[in-house]
Amino acid sequence: MSNRPKILIYDTTLRDGTQGEGVSFSAEDKILLARKIDQFRFDYIEGGWPGSNPRDMEFFRAMADVELKHAKLAAFGSTRRSNLAVEDDAQLLQLIEAQTPVITIFGKSWPLHVTEVLKTTLDENLLMIKDSVAFLKAQNKEVIYDAEHFFDGYKADPAYALATLNAASEGGADFLVLCDTNGGTQMREFSKILKMILEQNKQVRVGVHCHNDCGLGVALSLTGAEEGATMIQGTMNGYGERVGNANLTSIIANLHFKLGFNIECGSSLENLRDFSMEVDKLANIQPDKKEPFIGESAFAHKGGVHANAAKKVARSYEHMQPELVGNKQRILMSDMSGSSSVAMKAKELGIDLDEKSDQMRAFLAKIKELENKGYEFESADASFVVQIYQHFHDLKDDFEVVSYRTISEMVRDSDINISEAVVKLRVENSPEVKMTISESSGPVGAMDHAMRGAFAQHFPALKAVQLIDYKVRITQTGMGTDSIVQVLMKSSDGKNVWWTCGADGSIIEASYQALCDSFRYKLIIGA
Amino acid sequence: MSNRPKILIYDTTLRDGTQGEGVSFSAEDKILLARKIDQFRFDYIEGGWPGSNPRDMEFFRAMADVELKHAKLAAFGSTRRSNLAVEDDAQLLQLIEAQTPVITIFGKSWPLHVTEVLKTTLDENLLMIKDSVAFLKAQNKEVIYDAEHFFDGYKADPAYALATLNAASEGGADFLVLCDTNGGTQMREFSKILKMILEQNKQVRVGVHCHNDCGLGVALSLTGAEEGATMIQGTMNGYGERVGNANLTSIIANLHFKLGFNIECGSSLENLRDFSMEVDKLANIQPDKKEPFIGESAFAHKGGVHANAAKKVARSYEHMQPELVGNKQRILMSDMSGSSSVAMKAKELGIDLDEKSDQMRAFLAKIKELENKGYEFESADASFVVQIYQHFHDLKDDFEVVSYRTISEMVRDSDINISEAVVKLRVENSPEVKMTISESSGPVGAMDHAMRGAFAQHFPALKAVQLIDYKVRITQTGMGTDSIVQVLMKSSDGKNVWWTCGADGSIIEASYQALCDSFRYKLIIGA
Repeated sequence: MSNRPKILIYDTTLRDGTQGEGVSFSAEDKILLARKIDQFRFDYIEGGWPGSNPRDMEFFRAMADVELKHAKLAAFGSTRRSNLAVEDDAQLLQLIEAQTPVITIFGKSWPLHVTEVLKTTLDENLLMIKDSVAFLKAQNKEVIYDAEHFFDGYKADPAYALATLNAASEGGADFLVLCDTNGGTQMREFSKILKMILEQNKQVRVGVHCHNDCGLGVALSLTGAEEGATMIQGTMNGYGERVGNANLTSIIANLHFKLGFNIECGSSLENLRDFSMEVDKLANIQPDKKEPFIGESAFAHKGGVHANAAKKVARSYEHMQPELVGNKQRILMSDMSGSSSVAMKAKELGIDLDEKSDQMRAFLAKIKELENKGYEFESADASFVVQIYQHFHDLKDDFEVVSYRTISEMVRDSDINISEAVVKLRVENSPEVKMTISESSGPVGAMDHAMRGAFAQHFPALKAVQLIDYKVRITQTGMGTDSIVQVLMKSSDGKNVWWTCGADGSIIEASYQALCDSFRYKLIIGA
Repeated sequence: MSNRPKILIYDTTLRDGTQGEGVSFSAEDKILLARKIDQFRFDYIEGGWPGSNPRDMEFFRAMADVELKHAKLAAFGSTRRSNLAVEDDAQLLQLIEAQTPVITIFGKSWPLHVTEVLKTTLDENLLMIKDSVAFLKAQNKEVIYDAEHFFDGYKADPAYALATLNAASEGGADFLVLCDTNGGTQMREFSKILKMILEQNKQVRVGVHCHNDCGLGVALSLTGAEEGATMIQGTMNGYGERVGNANLTSIIANLHFKLGFNIECGSSLENLRDFSMEVDKLANIQPDKKEPFIGESAFAHKGGVHANAAKKVARSYEHMQPELVGNKQRILMSDMSGSSSVAMKAKELGIDLDEKSDQMRAFLAKIKELENKGYEFESADASFVVQIYQHFHDLKDDFEVVSYRTISEMVRDSDINISEAVVKLRVENSPEVKMTISESSGPVGAMDHAMRGAFAQHFPALKAVQLIDYKVRITQTGMGTDSIVQVLMKSSDGKNVWWTCGADGSIIEASYQALCDSFRYKLIIGA
């Protein structure tokens, strides 16, 4: 399979991706992300639409000073307005002003859109396409023509849809990209239409741009490659309008590992999970645990049969080696799992446990009880480690909190909005009770500061610990603010990152529990 | 297309679905869900594996008294153990004891699994399959044979994989279901192998069971139907081990609306979104906004061009009418949206705004500023309505909070863990400041109670308001507990449900803001 054609990967995370609900990047984030995409060796980076908002133009101005090693930067825009000369079209001029080597413009393929949205004639639309492409080609740009709504347009009026592609070819387009803009096209019709276009356009290269509205974004893109398209457009993690664009993360893993196509980023794939998570971090989006190949759950097993089999034959319930995409196997804790899963999980953490002991049975019962109370060990590995140490190693707490009080106060007219925490604790079994107080903008921060203040001399290792993420949810629905609050807390010491959990009727107590587990975990793993 | 064959939908949410990370159901939940699946008119409900855990056996016992209107209940298990007579196999006997009309058993198709996991011989495995099917057929059961790892097995040893299917046929199986257990199979090889099996098994019906590990779960299932399989197995919302089983929610929408297959649940599809959300609620899983067809974002538009076009031509950026699956169009608020999106959003809420006014410009600037502070109007419609009313209707607050204080206290030895809130407020511009105090298990509940106590006489409408969900996240990563905390709060008055938001360095202040917006919203919509 290694002699299959080269497929060019065209990333539009920075443009079409930002149409997704909850996705937005600052101009600086966009620059950082463009560098990362280049590092990962995608072939094209669509940076934005300079004519649509000032932030995108700012981005292109800044990118003029950024040297990309492999990827080509593309500015995105539309064909000229109707009844206006190309050289008078502000939007086209802004595309040139963006100073990118590549310009991608979209045009209309579907008569409905020409007459009802653009409010122009079918003939004028053809001229708009041809003129615009030719104008940009005359500026020595590589020009990619995105045929918007191509499949819907083709189904409505095949001859006209073909005429729009011909107009782009005549203008000199380097690529014709067939867009399933609304994401409603099915696989067989997609194949059939694409095949026919490839037959008729031997001179111009053809690409595809798909969306996931029917859950087929990846499948259609791969079908594109199988049929002979040589460019695939998509977004990292499938960001994009409605349910999202075709997910490049899955597409490239399939192209490389499963279908044997040649892609430039093939050599980067062992960093795929890291790359995907960095993109989510910049977008401030919670990574999708169930994302194929690289999600946290992608190689996670629960239940006795599979966990047992996974022990016997590594690949028995996995379609590939997780490490090839930077992922790893996980054994999940849950009330379905028996002692063998707990033992495996412990082993994964470097602890050997006897599966058949009474102690193990007592431990399983304890974990189950805590889970019923709202703890979530699946997501909070470090709290699970603390439980193991407390149960099997008879870990005595290095510290003991006697009591705490948090006060949060707001006084509108005096502009007061402050939280204070008082914590009384004993350190290392000393009989002396220390009382410590701190303030911060919120009660959890105040408690964190107060406790660490008290620990400073005894546990210097805790100085490096920082809370870096924090999540709260209600574990049962329909129960109001008196119901069980589950807190998940992410901590880091600069080298390691860990999650702990807590659960209680009070968000303060649940946060306190997660905080204590985080400190305990750090004391277990050491400096 | 209306004469295409009938496809049977086999739901395994209650069995394979519960292998998913974070998915678990109590026995009562399972009964409730089985009724709902039946109501929705799926054809088969796989309820569990009686031999694997007591909860599943409890479920089958209870189901003996439940009358299903359309669906057939199936118990799931495996072929007999090696070198054991069927009538002595406890697991097979438990399957019969489950008293279901249908029994589904899986067997091994892949030599690797036979010798390394089952630790038996290839010949014995064939006998295990044939004996087990025949034994269950002799009990007058409909028997479905799930050929585990069929595609991997076929690729490793085609003759042996076929022999396992023949063994099941000879045993009298009613269905042969080809399982892509590890989810690694690609579309062309899937098609090719399935076609061949269909050619060779004209007498026995064939089904498919796919997983989403390569992002192809839906595509493979639909390919199955196109090639001639007449049963599709999957789970609601794509629950399941690793990244999940093939998502029935997407599959049935595609089969019915896009491909014209005949499915019994076709007439239920306008309830698809509600059904999907009920399943998530029972599983206590956050609905996936990006789920095809029925996700909250599935018909959500942001950005001027598409929002404008969607106004001009309803279907211009949507592949179908959202209402057909119980969904609806949404226009998103975000810093990318201009006045026309805000006006549309307001109109959706029944408020007419002038897009070109200075007031509108000032409003957009205010929304943008609040979003920069961490507010999220995309998810909190009701807070957006409050903003509109405050800005355009000059809404004077019906109440004014002068100050508040929350105290959360824990004393280990005395088993004290309680929160108290003191709120000072003015109601309806009265000069009198009311001071009110309440306690609860947590600070947000205490504040809710205190405020509603003060409101009781003045605003009886607020009595019915309940907080039903609550979510917290950090809006910027890497900033610890001092960073901006975003709170989303879901309220209900029994008839309506609404989301409000707040953002602050303090979780208490952010919760307070969301709480006030919830009360304000209720006062706007009235009793």
